[in-house]
Amino acid sequence: MEGMQEQDLQEKIKKLIKEKKINELHNMLENINSADFPSLFEELEEEEILIIYRLLTKVKAAEVFAELDSDLQEKLINMFTDKELKTVVNELFMDDTVDLIEEMPSSVVKRILKNVGLQDRKIINELLNYPEDSAGSIMTTEFIEFKEDITIQDGFEIIRKTGLKKETVYYAYVVDKSRKLLGFVDVKEMLIADRDKKITEIMEENPISVLTTEDQENVAKMFDKYNYIAMPVVDKENRLVGIVTIDDAIDVIQDENTEDFEKMAALIPNEDTYFKTSVFKHAKNRIFWLLVLMLSSTITGTIIQKYESAFAVVPILVSFIPMIMDTGGNCGSQSSTLIIRGLALDEIKISDVLKVIWKEIRVALMVGIILALVTAVRIFLQYGNEYANNIINLALVVGLTLITTAIIAKLVGGVLPILAKKLKLDPAIMAAPIISTIVDMCSILVFFKFATLILNL
Amino acid sequence: MEGMQEQDLQEKIKKLIKEKKINELHNMLENINSADFPSLFEELEEEEILIIYRLLTKVKAAEVFAELDSDLQEKLINMFTDKELKTVVNELFMDDTVDLIEEMPSSVVKRILKNVGLQDRKIINELLNYPEDSAGSIMTTEFIEFKEDITIQDGFEIIRKTGLKKETVYYAYVVDKSRKLLGFVDVKEMLIADRDKKITEIMEENPISVLTTEDQENVAKMFDKYNYIAMPVVDKENRLVGIVTIDDAIDVIQDENTEDFEKMAALIPNEDTYFKTSVFKHAKNRIFWLLVLMLSSTITGTIIQKYESAFAVVPILVSFIPMIMDTGGNCGSQSSTLIIRGLALDEIKISDVLKVIWKEIRVALMVGIILALVTAVRIFLQYGNEYANNIINLALVVGLTLITTAIIAKLVGGVLPILAKKLKLDPAIMAAPIISTIVDMCSILVFFKFATLILNL
Repeated sequence: MEGMQEQDLQEKIKKLIKEKKINELHNMLENINSADFPSLFEELEEEEILIIYRLLTKVKAAEVFAELDSDLQEKLINMFTDKELKTVVNELFMDDTVDLIEEMPSSVVKRILKNVGLQDRKIINELLNYPEDSAGSIMTTEFIEFKEDITIQDGFEIIRKTGLKKETVYYAYVVDKSRKLLGFVDVKEMLIADRDKKITEIMEENPISVLTTEDQENVAKMFDKYNYIAMPVVDKENRLVGIVTIDDAIDVIQDENTEDFEKMAALIPNEDTYFKTSVFKHAKNRIFWLLVLMLSSTITGTIIQKYESAFAVVPILVSFIPMIMDTGGNCGSQSSTLIIRGLALDEIKISDVLKVIWKEIRVALMVGIILALVTAVRIFLQYGNEYANNIINLALVVGLTLITTAIIAKLVGGVLPILAKKLKLDPAIMAAPIISTIVDMCSILVFFKFATLILNL
Repeated sequence: MEGMQEQDLQEKIKKLIKEKKINELHNMLENINSADFPSLFEELEEEEILIIYRLLTKVKAAEVFAELDSDLQEKLINMFTDKELKTVVNELFMDDTVDLIEEMPSSVVKRILKNVGLQDRKIINELLNYPEDSAGSIMTTEFIEFKEDITIQDGFEIIRKTGLKKETVYYAYVVDKSRKLLGFVDVKEMLIADRDKKITEIMEENPISVLTTEDQENVAKMFDKYNYIAMPVVDKENRLVGIVTIDDAIDVIQDENTEDFEKMAALIPNEDTYFKTSVFKHAKNRIFWLLVLMLSSTITGTIIQKYESAFAVVPILVSFIPMIMDTGGNCGSQSSTLIIRGLALDEIKISDVLKVIWKEIRVALMVGIILALVTAVRIFLQYGNEYANNIINLALVVGLTLITTAIIAKLVGGVLPILAKKLKLDPAIMAAPIISTIVDMCSILVFFKFATLILNL
């Protein structure tokens, strides 16, 4: 596929289908990576997709199927014969089957479950019962399991016999008679060691594992920390029930990052992509915080109203409002973003709050003084003639407001995310939008206080 | 370690060191995962750390060393004998050695290079020369390589002999005589297949590979897409020069996300953690955008100034400014965040710009009308008595401004990130801070236009 443009490829495939050159098409499909099929299918007709799909080997067909988006999966299933459906469901890994079932309408789910063996149906039902976003909900039950008394040679036999249906063979898990997790074996160690050795001799003891109920975000963090390819999942009695593989952990990392981005922009998080989300759903996800923040910001308006007499005398004061609000908001969101991200990556802990405050105050002073000086210069240049008699006081009011605003903003931005975490809320909601709204009130109040004081209003 | 609190563990280790119970300490350390040592070391003295470090096996010592932060690495190296330094550097994987060298001051670098073999020194120098953030800069040169004419059995022999010094044995790469990449072999396939088969029979042909110069962000995206454990890196002649492993890809994903978070909060991205960054550096990273945005927002101030006569007659107008600015900013940053994230995850393409515009207009209309209605009700309730004769017109001015602002904000927020990408800039800079500043100008202008028109000012 290298070098060949996607569009050319689509054209070529359409042509081969039309001319019924099935052999040539078959050879071509063999060389395309499963992960490249979804974008390839984008411009093809459903009938063409079905023809291509039927030309794939069983294993590849299942791989491709797992990569498709749920709309296309549903369409394909509706075109499948029962036999075809059975084949794909049996080839899919258990976690992919569960994902599929969660996305399909109930009529399709019924057809899927009808074509699954009794044993698998039991496992699927169990997996479906784990809480959303838990380790149990993202794990697979297809892992290599060793009894504790086998040799490495036995281990290789087990892999040879069962490996094809396991999601990873790189790690094998050793359990005792009551299925309690004893350790894991890296296939690398197996390959290097003497084959007559007992498996327990090369086993990694005290393996890091997670409970089925563990939050998937923490599971993903542990992958990042321990550099594992797979992580065992155990129940409360430490019995091995599944594994989470690293490809799913990466998906979780990306999903959790997307969720943080969305929360930080005052959006209700949404699992679908931008285009798959309807206009109505988009509006629904956005309106809640917009209303809350809009109504909150009227408080700032009320503060301004209280100082009507001040800007009646010095109307120029009003023109500084946007600059003060924007700068306060930006100062605050810089700090809150750094803290939110630091908390998410475990680089900042709740107990660091005093260190954060001390750091933010010093940064705020530096930043605030520079902002104040630059603005003072601008005020002299812009209004030097117009307000000549009062220019120093005006610059003083705005400059002091900027310094105070920077300090307030950086403190609010630095502390609120930590407070949220302390209260077991998601720190990501304490981001730019809320911080700006809070800082606005403070900075406008400070501004008019300084103005009435220094300008004797 | 399970169940045992970190603090207890630290206390226990301190006690064992004091009482010189070296054997007991040694056994205890064996059961601690390499990735847990950094936090364990946090509360220990340097001398204690060195004692612990010297009790670890060679392989584990190198693993632990690679996990430490650069300050502690530097301190340890300064305490190491030349022989100890040589051991750790020889045990480290090449990519970790390169990372280490990049972080150390030149005196330490000299000592490190002195203790590295000539061959390795050559490789290190080559790796150091790849552009920052390229595939070459994050790859390792320790991978398993097969010639094309060997059997699977031969392959196992090669793994057995060389596997210990390779970063992964899960994939082996097949090259021809001129070292051109032909394909890769998954160890799973090797374990399942007949050992007499030629390696080329089970080899995955046309492997996905990346150039040494490829941006690390794209490399990470390909891991996400293709679900690989490692990715081959080739030069322009398609000769295999290294591999990137998935643990490094996860680090890249997290780093790139952090960079986006920082850019979206008007920060200059910074690779160090919050606490490792000095106050001065923090201020430096924050001041640039604060100044740019502060000076830009004076334009909004100038617009307000032009309408001095309007709010001299109806002073209440001024109190709506914060609400309009905040709502516009929030509307805009919601859209820009969704688009920036969609672009980063390749869910939105540059060519989708018209689809985005059409979607945003409809969402903006829905959201804007709701905001306008809620605000109208609030205005009636809050100012119904005070401004009785003009209340409908006032509500009309503010309501129409909100609807128009929502549309402008969502269009600006939706289109600018795509435009940035089109211009080969990072879409992440077109986030809340810039969008707010631009939308502020528009919304305040719209507000006073409606006000002068409808209220006859």
